[in-house]
Amino acid sequence: MTGGTPLRTLDEDDLLDRILPLFGGSDDLVVAPGDDAAVLRTTGETVATTDTAVLGRDWLDAWSSGSDIGHKVIVQNLADVAAMGGTPTGVLITLVADPGLSLEWVLDHAAGLGSACAEAGVAVLGGDLSSAPPGVVMVSVTALGRLDGPVVLRSGATPGDALAVCGSLGLAAAGLRLLETGSEDRHPLAVERQRRPVSPLAQGPVAARAGATAMLDVSDGLVRDGTRLARASGVVLEIVLEALEVDLAEIRGAVGASEALECVLAGGEEHSLLATFPVDLVPAGWRVIGRAREMAAGERPGVLVDGHSVAHTGWDHFRSS
Amino acid sequence: MTGGTPLRTLDEDDLLDRILPLFGGSDDLVVAPGDDAAVLRTTGETVATTDTAVLGRDWLDAWSSGSDIGHKVIVQNLADVAAMGGTPTGVLITLVADPGLSLEWVLDHAAGLGSACAEAGVAVLGGDLSSAPPGVVMVSVTALGRLDGPVVLRSGATPGDALAVCGSLGLAAAGLRLLETGSEDRHPLAVERQRRPVSPLAQGPVAARAGATAMLDVSDGLVRDGTRLARASGVVLEIVLEALEVDLAEIRGAVGASEALECVLAGGEEHSLLATFPVDLVPAGWRVIGRAREMAAGERPGVLVDGHSVAHTGWDHFRSS
Repeated sequence: MTGGTPLRTLDEDDLLDRILPLFGGSDDLVVAPGDDAAVLRTTGETVATTDTAVLGRDWLDAWSSGSDIGHKVIVQNLADVAAMGGTPTGVLITLVADPGLSLEWVLDHAAGLGSACAEAGVAVLGGDLSSAPPGVVMVSVTALGRLDGPVVLRSGATPGDALAVCGSLGLAAAGLRLLETGSEDRHPLAVERQRRPVSPLAQGPVAARAGATAMLDVSDGLVRDGTRLARASGVVLEIVLEALEVDLAEIRGAVGASEALECVLAGGEEHSLLATFPVDLVPAGWRVIGRAREMAAGERPGVLVDGHSVAHTGWDHFRSS
Repeated sequence: MTGGTPLRTLDEDDLLDRILPLFGGSDDLVVAPGDDAAVLRTTGETVATTDTAVLGRDWLDAWSSGSDIGHKVIVQNLADVAAMGGTPTGVLITLVADPGLSLEWVLDHAAGLGSACAEAGVAVLGGDLSSAPPGVVMVSVTALGRLDGPVVLRSGATPGDALAVCGSLGLAAAGLRLLETGSEDRHPLAVERQRRPVSPLAQGPVAARAGATAMLDVSDGLVRDGTRLARASGVVLEIVLEALEVDLAEIRGAVGASEALECVLAGGEEHSLLATFPVDLVPAGWRVIGRAREMAAGERPGVLVDGHSVAHTGWDHFRSS
């Protein structure tokens, strides 16, 4: 990401002139980026969320291209909008970078950001460029969305609800394991999902309209994110391991049985959707992996897998590992 | 900002439990931070903008407290909303920091963010925390706003319009000079404005309703920002130096005549509003400092001060100084 043309040789306006054509608009974009702010046509309620990726923490250049990182940080943010039952409409993007970073990397990165937005029909509403100390590159995205149906919180799961997932589990984490061991050819799709995650964005509003009682996206691992939903709702989530067999089977050959279990239960960055529904309202495309039940006397809210609590807690940003 | 309790000794949820009570909501906040995303009640059009502050580039700890930086980055963003004619309604805040950063600095910073939002009646819609390499601290803010009147772009200035400013010019830049030379006592108010800028936010919508034809906030200097407005509108802006005498007089005693001129013409971070109006529509609280005229044959759009072009171009993020 260094070499080539360093950013410091361009002025900010020249750089913006190169980047902005890589970003698209939408029918709802009333004022495009380039003024003090953009203006987006909105309905009565706007969903808003933000998430950041930092070089060396969230990605390594040896494993991901600029375009990959652009794609990933957009999907991460749009998945949070979908997990509320929302439809993503716009993003704002901030790049804070070492002025020695190459223009070529930045343009590739911007192309990844732009294509991920275009795929989702999302307008780029603006952004910011700022310089940082040597070696530092980070990209921060804020996503906005609209609600065409009910909003779905994490806190609405009711005892008796089915627990269901839409999308894969453990694939991105398995891809990371393969990158770490230099064995990408054992499961190219897993590696691809680590680099460029896929989130079933359209299923967020589908779940909301179907009657989902609680929902989130699996960004930090099934058990950790499931525990968040359980605590917010005051329930115990009982996951049936057999229901995860399809996920385990997908990656067991590539990473081994023990690692596969770790990936499926604790693997982050998958961005599949996890939700609870009244048992007869689970929509097509979702698979039931367990159920919510009341806490027993003295029991705390949380996740059990085949009746056992599990140690896998997923990723924490500041805590030393 | 180091010493005290390092961030790495807390987990992310504990840290959020300390920070979130420092942030307020508003009547328009439908779903507060803590879920995958927040939900804000919105009207038909939403203004959106983002701006970032980086330690060592945008602030020095010797000169600004965590609270000062929190205040400043909020005002920077809200000024961009006001400059469109908008009323700020919500912000999202991202902190990317060295895990050795002290909890005490972060809580002071969050208090500054929270109080600046509360002063402006703006809800904190959410945020993100991420770790960064040693020594790196940056805060990125996205601001949203509503439009109760017309939107005002940079591109609408018409030959014959009056050019007017609301708020001070050069004060924050003079404060920076005083900090650089250790002579803060020569003009404490200028130093205070450098640390905690004041933007006439309510005057953005006032100007819009009064008939402003173009507007922006002075973030990079009067000449540089004026040039942006002139280019977007395809006009020449003629500034009358005598109209800036009140700004020059305010800081001449503290920084000297030559520096005062540099501060008033090129000083950034002031966040006053600069707008053009039909001459008979300049609202109360705004002062006329010049006019827009047509370009002569072969002339390019830009800013002239007493008929002369000026070299002061203000701050550029990536270009070496």
